[in-house]
Amino acid sequence: MALIVQKYGGSSVANTDRIKAVAERVVATAKQGNKVIVVVSAMAGETDKLIRIAHEITDAPDEREMDMLLSSGERVTSALTAMAIQSMGYKSVSFTGRQVGIITDSAHTKAMIERISAERLVKAINEDKIPVVAGFQGIDESSDVTTLGRGGSDTTAVAIAAALKADLCEIYTDVDGVYTTDPRIVKEARKLDKISYDEMLEMASLGAKILHGRSVEFAKKYNVPLVVRSSFNYNPGTLIIKEDEDMEKIVVSGVAADKNQARITIMGVPDKPGIAANLFDAIANANIVVDIIVQNISSDTKATDISFTVSKADSKKAFEITKDVSDKLGAKGVNMNTDVAKVSIIGVGMVSHFGVAAKIFETLAKEGINIMMISTSEIKVSCVIDVKDTEKAVKTLHDAFNLAK
Amino acid sequence: MALIVQKYGGSSVANTDRIKAVAERVVATAKQGNKVIVVVSAMAGETDKLIRIAHEITDAPDEREMDMLLSSGERVTSALTAMAIQSMGYKSVSFTGRQVGIITDSAHTKAMIERISAERLVKAINEDKIPVVAGFQGIDESSDVTTLGRGGSDTTAVAIAAALKADLCEIYTDVDGVYTTDPRIVKEARKLDKISYDEMLEMASLGAKILHGRSVEFAKKYNVPLVVRSSFNYNPGTLIIKEDEDMEKIVVSGVAADKNQARITIMGVPDKPGIAANLFDAIANANIVVDIIVQNISSDTKATDISFTVSKADSKKAFEITKDVSDKLGAKGVNMNTDVAKVSIIGVGMVSHFGVAAKIFETLAKEGINIMMISTSEIKVSCVIDVKDTEKAVKTLHDAFNLAK
Repeated sequence: MALIVQKYGGSSVANTDRIKAVAERVVATAKQGNKVIVVVSAMAGETDKLIRIAHEITDAPDEREMDMLLSSGERVTSALTAMAIQSMGYKSVSFTGRQVGIITDSAHTKAMIERISAERLVKAINEDKIPVVAGFQGIDESSDVTTLGRGGSDTTAVAIAAALKADLCEIYTDVDGVYTTDPRIVKEARKLDKISYDEMLEMASLGAKILHGRSVEFAKKYNVPLVVRSSFNYNPGTLIIKEDEDMEKIVVSGVAADKNQARITIMGVPDKPGIAANLFDAIANANIVVDIIVQNISSDTKATDISFTVSKADSKKAFEITKDVSDKLGAKGVNMNTDVAKVSIIGVGMVSHFGVAAKIFETLAKEGINIMMISTSEIKVSCVIDVKDTEKAVKTLHDAFNLAK
Repeated sequence: MALIVQKYGGSSVANTDRIKAVAERVVATAKQGNKVIVVVSAMAGETDKLIRIAHEITDAPDEREMDMLLSSGERVTSALTAMAIQSMGYKSVSFTGRQVGIITDSAHTKAMIERISAERLVKAINEDKIPVVAGFQGIDESSDVTTLGRGGSDTTAVAIAAALKADLCEIYTDVDGVYTTDPRIVKEARKLDKISYDEMLEMASLGAKILHGRSVEFAKKYNVPLVVRSSFNYNPGTLIIKEDEDMEKIVVSGVAADKNQARITIMGVPDKPGIAANLFDAIANANIVVDIIVQNISSDTKATDISFTVSKADSKKAFEITKDVSDKLGAKGVNMNTDVAKVSIIGVGMVSHFGVAAKIFETLAKEGINIMMISTSEIKVSCVIDVKDTEKAVKTLHDAFNLAK
């Protein structure tokens, strides 16, 4: 007998028929002798509808009120799912984030979980009830409702699994698992049976939109085994766990592409200490996340060029800030290129295998793809390229590293 | 400066334009130097939609889960209304029933309020914030969400007004106030400027669907002055207060009609003690409320006829129970008439004015309307008549008692 947390996303509970299908899956897991805890998202489209209504009221809705508003969607699904499980003859009970003791900080719309008491969950399980928890939400110290931001229900599920030392946390979505790359780009893309937390984190942050990074970080921190799988079929999915020896034999696990990138370059910056800090402080103060930074050694030894990437959404604001800094520093100018993409190769095996980077450069060069920026870590290599080359780069790298097997 | 609780029903918050109009009214009240607490219902249609979805899942949804489900509607409206007030430059904060400390019993879907702490309401008001409370809901001792049943948001508003000793509780709806009778039946019907709690209770229970009886009982118990008025115009509405000398001079305040009635008669019952108790115990055990009871003296001195009325919804079940009892007692038989209506005359002045009942009987007799059953109390006289005579009876009584003035 295992304790399993199952999280169902918006597409998995999109309508009453889908909710009944979820109930069947939950009951099937319970029938196999497992204890099951269910976490649900809002029905697909509901959260967007509420956001739209709020913007009909005011252009800048208060974040505390947004949390009160948006948290209602998951409550609806939790009650309906509990009813569906009950109608199959099993005991079930819905809980809000508050009722299972999910206490967060007060950062409305993007709160962080501080602790979970889970008392009522334990009690329900001991009474042979199947608890259905409204995902995405908690309360802060003053008992105000908070939400956990994008991917929040995944975080709820992982946090509950961690608190109760669950044997497994299953994330049900509308894809079969984690692939070596986007199957819409490379039809030979292969579903991975398993992947390490770190690899998944790189995949998540690099634009593979399956699982939000925060939930993976949480799973890694508390060593919660995660499975990503589809609620529309019974395929086994992808297991996300601590890296093991098997994994290290596989050099590369996947190729990820992210077109939501812009590159900004500030040219001819006087080469003095503290210049970069100056620039990136100003950008950080605007809550903009900088991804890759490259400082070129300029031909002019008294000056340097600095290039960095930000998301497309932040690019306009980052460009303005950079121009201001450029003026103050007496740099030669600033330019921006929004027609760029970041292609990355991820794999825990890289750390012990030399030559991965070289193979990437060689492969891309052979296809005539120009590399604008490079960034490397122990388990990934990212290249910024022209956006028009994205699909070609992903295909050729997927092939070069033999990921289709 | 007064403390005013304003409750807005579903039609008053039916869409974002209506919610903005509510915010304007709230702000206007605050601008006059008042402290305002707002209580809101779910947007019109939302609760029905959720009930429909639940019934798609299961024929018999669990009541605890229904409460979790249905309580979401008022949360949405409370957040949106707070946003709308904020967008007009006023401080506002939404609260759930739990957050303002509304503790109820555990009778899900029809819970009774046991106490209100209202701490956060007091704090918000002292900070010059306009609180917007989600109506219709509370939590029980185990922290489960409960709802207060039909008219629950009215009860929330009155209970908060009572707890904070508010100067006034305004119930905003889509009618202008309480009328001497249904204006759709009698176009001369006149809006009452004021009416006593007891009269309003009779009006409410007799089919004038403006305000739910429980909230009026609550207002009476804690002496909360109530106003019923429209959120679609600025007409003054009807004040509901303790009866005063002025009121007692007015004999009759209104005429109410209720077509949701059925009369059941059990004939030739052996006239022994305890017979009636036997019958009405059996009916009470089925949770059916009996309204009027009349026991006729039969021509046969050893037997009697008993007639009583129940709501149409309960009539079939009550009829079956009565037949069972009839068989056991050896009565002559049972018949039922669902083509009946109850017409009532209400007025606190009746208690000190003789001849009201006589005038009713005379008026109806003149119109050839047969009275099947009669029931009287200190402040009302009800007659059960043929349903086809309802409109005629209401019109002629309204006229006879000069209610149009």
